[in-house]
Amino acid sequence: MVPNSKVPASIVIFGAGGDLTRRKLIPALFNLYVEGYLPPLFRIFCVDYVQQELNLFRESLRTGITEFSRNGAPSADKWTDFSERIDYISGDFLQRTTFLALKQGISGFEKSVRKRGTRLFYFAISPRFIETVAHGLYTDQLANRDNADRLVIEKPFGTDLASAKTLNKYLLARFTEKQLYRIDHYLGKETVQNIMAFRFANYVFEPLWNKKYIDHIQISVAEKVSVGSRGGYYDGAGALRDMVQNHLLQLLCIVAMECPGAYEAEVIRNAKTKVIRDIRPMKSAQVSRQVVRGQYKGYRQEAHVSSASTTETFIAAKIFIDNARWKGVPFFLRTGKSLEKQSTVIIVQFKDSPHKIFRDDIVPNRLIISIQPELEISLLFESKVPGLQMKLQPVEMDFTYNESYSTRPIPEAYEALLLDVLKGDATLFMRADQVEAAWKAVMPILDSWKKQARNGLHAYVPGSWGPAAAKTLLHPHSSDWILLPETLARAAPAPLK
Amino acid sequence: MVPNSKVPASIVIFGAGGDLTRRKLIPALFNLYVEGYLPPLFRIFCVDYVQQELNLFRESLRTGITEFSRNGAPSADKWTDFSERIDYISGDFLQRTTFLALKQGISGFEKSVRKRGTRLFYFAISPRFIETVAHGLYTDQLANRDNADRLVIEKPFGTDLASAKTLNKYLLARFTEKQLYRIDHYLGKETVQNIMAFRFANYVFEPLWNKKYIDHIQISVAEKVSVGSRGGYYDGAGALRDMVQNHLLQLLCIVAMECPGAYEAEVIRNAKTKVIRDIRPMKSAQVSRQVVRGQYKGYRQEAHVSSASTTETFIAAKIFIDNARWKGVPFFLRTGKSLEKQSTVIIVQFKDSPHKIFRDDIVPNRLIISIQPELEISLLFESKVPGLQMKLQPVEMDFTYNESYSTRPIPEAYEALLLDVLKGDATLFMRADQVEAAWKAVMPILDSWKKQARNGLHAYVPGSWGPAAAKTLLHPHSSDWILLPETLARAAPAPLK
Repeated sequence: MVPNSKVPASIVIFGAGGDLTRRKLIPALFNLYVEGYLPPLFRIFCVDYVQQELNLFRESLRTGITEFSRNGAPSADKWTDFSERIDYISGDFLQRTTFLALKQGISGFEKSVRKRGTRLFYFAISPRFIETVAHGLYTDQLANRDNADRLVIEKPFGTDLASAKTLNKYLLARFTEKQLYRIDHYLGKETVQNIMAFRFANYVFEPLWNKKYIDHIQISVAEKVSVGSRGGYYDGAGALRDMVQNHLLQLLCIVAMECPGAYEAEVIRNAKTKVIRDIRPMKSAQVSRQVVRGQYKGYRQEAHVSSASTTETFIAAKIFIDNARWKGVPFFLRTGKSLEKQSTVIIVQFKDSPHKIFRDDIVPNRLIISIQPELEISLLFESKVPGLQMKLQPVEMDFTYNESYSTRPIPEAYEALLLDVLKGDATLFMRADQVEAAWKAVMPILDSWKKQARNGLHAYVPGSWGPAAAKTLLHPHSSDWILLPETLARAAPAPLK
Repeated sequence: MVPNSKVPASIVIFGAGGDLTRRKLIPALFNLYVEGYLPPLFRIFCVDYVQQELNLFRESLRTGITEFSRNGAPSADKWTDFSERIDYISGDFLQRTTFLALKQGISGFEKSVRKRGTRLFYFAISPRFIETVAHGLYTDQLANRDNADRLVIEKPFGTDLASAKTLNKYLLARFTEKQLYRIDHYLGKETVQNIMAFRFANYVFEPLWNKKYIDHIQISVAEKVSVGSRGGYYDGAGALRDMVQNHLLQLLCIVAMECPGAYEAEVIRNAKTKVIRDIRPMKSAQVSRQVVRGQYKGYRQEAHVSSASTTETFIAAKIFIDNARWKGVPFFLRTGKSLEKQSTVIIVQFKDSPHKIFRDDIVPNRLIISIQPELEISLLFESKVPGLQMKLQPVEMDFTYNESYSTRPIPEAYEALLLDVLKGDATLFMRADQVEAAWKAVMPILDSWKKQARNGLHAYVPGSWGPAAAKTLLHPHSSDWILLPETLARAAPAPLK
């Protein structure tokens, strides 16, 4: 549970001047520290290009915690103790001196505690520096013990299959797969982890979890925010690379995977990789029928976005998984920016009953796993309306995390994931073959779009639910994308016959 | 929905001076009237031995509504209109004059409305008068149209298989089965009706509803009340006759029946009868192992109870249904008086998962259908405890009638059932063969007890959950009877291995 408390930890953040460090990583590490999950001996080395005065830097991290941590402002004494373990190393990743300074820092710490400890290197950097930093670590043997030293690589991991392969090859020439933690913070979310518990610890769902009983599955990650200040990165990426290749396919894996034989990293990652490999490859002609892309109006006027951009800010896709469990069941994936609401939801739509003894139009059962903004699992089922006739109506049986665990704060995804890295548990991280399989799955779409950059790019109004074409994609399985639970019982879209 | 509104209805209550009329029947009829479910032309004939002044009698019914109706005191104008349709006929059931007076009343009403209408004869009388009253109706041809005239017979219907057969034979020599409505008010309860909707309108439960996935089922009807003023009747009956042979076996039928091909009276009653017939007959030696009976301390001091009584006020039984769906799955039935709480609950305990990938002790899924005092359906499932480890805990997904339908008052069982009789819908009533099958199922227990009246009668403390032996009966399937939902998530009894 707590990483081996006798082993000291050096936690290195490359790109520590960036947003991720202030908003996510330091608040997560601080919470882990406060709750006793960090080993008593640890030191945090923050590395970035800019020159900064250490105390000012620490202060900027303190205000970051106040602003972004789920626990708010840190208490003075905890913060003092924690912040004194933070060092700042200013240096260019292209210069060896940077790595030598880091090495000196880590060695000094390890000497002072008289133990070679765990070393965690977090790559909170632009993807173009991944190889540089990795090479620096390799050259100066900063991460030379494969059971103790771990590299955490942020997405995007490559920009297509070829670049991902190249990157994997580069890293695996210098480190072992065991040392590489390709992070997808979606997998650290409570509800995402809970889907595994839900599926594999509850015997009643597994028998229903297949093509015999499931009509289709919807996985929707809707964002209300626009690209904002991320235009520079986003315009070169788009929704497919930014969201589908990683987050959505990872959610798909957890929903669709076979029951793993054990709750162990390799077993689970094998099961997930198999799902991605079983995705039916789309032929070029199918892309236009099975994939809808959109761009919100005004996107081209965003900062750092090309005025002729054809980058998609919305994508909806219908995919099939060709295996014994899922053959013929469509999985509908959707994600986009500037949509009506922030909402991440997985809908498992069960089939209609084979025989009907009630006269009413029966709404087939539906399992709703809501991940954002509410953590909630609910089952839509038919119930008798109280009254003197046998009249049916769909109602919900639900379980809400916040209601049930109001006294237990739900940890942030980064807390869970950083702790896993410290423990050496790679279950929730992506293996090389997983990443490559995911790229392989989306390549036909990327290739097809490259050929016809403008064709089929639908404009949509910011604040809407995206292009209308994304709705017709669902036919005849559903008349619309199914929304969050609160609106469900009252306005459930009827299944089309 | 509303019975044919052009057909007038004569509603006759035999034994109208009793509690049932004041507490249940008249409040139910009044609510049906207020909500427009009675035909515009109806008249209520109340028959009892005692002499009563009509206005005083009507007034006693009015206060009965005030006291017992779910809607409280009747409004003055509604009551005036309703009460003017109530007649009172004082008469001895043994005298023909009583029936002739009734005949005159009904004929007078039907003449005044110029139509032969529906006639409903409610037997709210001691069982010893059933034949007498039935014969009176027969002799004077008060119920001679089998598509219009209906007899509603209250439980107990016989006191054993032989007497039930005799009674059926007697009635069927004078009326057709179609005219006979053997009432079990449990079947009119909303949640009981809802179990059918739940099972047969939701495709996700039916595949799980069998021996492959279900470990055992508990059906528990606990009463907090003692025998009170009913000692005279109860001491001659006991819990097996009073509750198991009718209510509990009927609940069992609804839980265990095959999916009927249609929602039609005969089809459903066939399916239910089949379940009772499939109950494995208990051999005499098995009774002592599979049935626990108890008597609460102080029962023998109750009014009209024999001071040496061996009547059971508590019974718990383990039964098996020998068919393809249920072979080997025990059904545990329990009922008793003077128990800790009033609580009617059906527990469907699913089996443990065949393979376990999580280290925790996993509590198998459980479906809880609570009928009294709360109408609630919930599913116990394993969920990840929010936090940094994959730790599981059973939680509940639930659906509460009162929360979901707070604006819709839930009708009383008698309202639903009286309306069904007026419509001629016998779905929720027991057919002759059902009653006989139910008696046949309990006869081995009655016979065995007769042979050893005192042996194995456990005394229990009033306000407890009955004799401890009822708990061991559940082994190894459960460590205790499973209580109402509110206590479940916190103190779920662990399954024994």
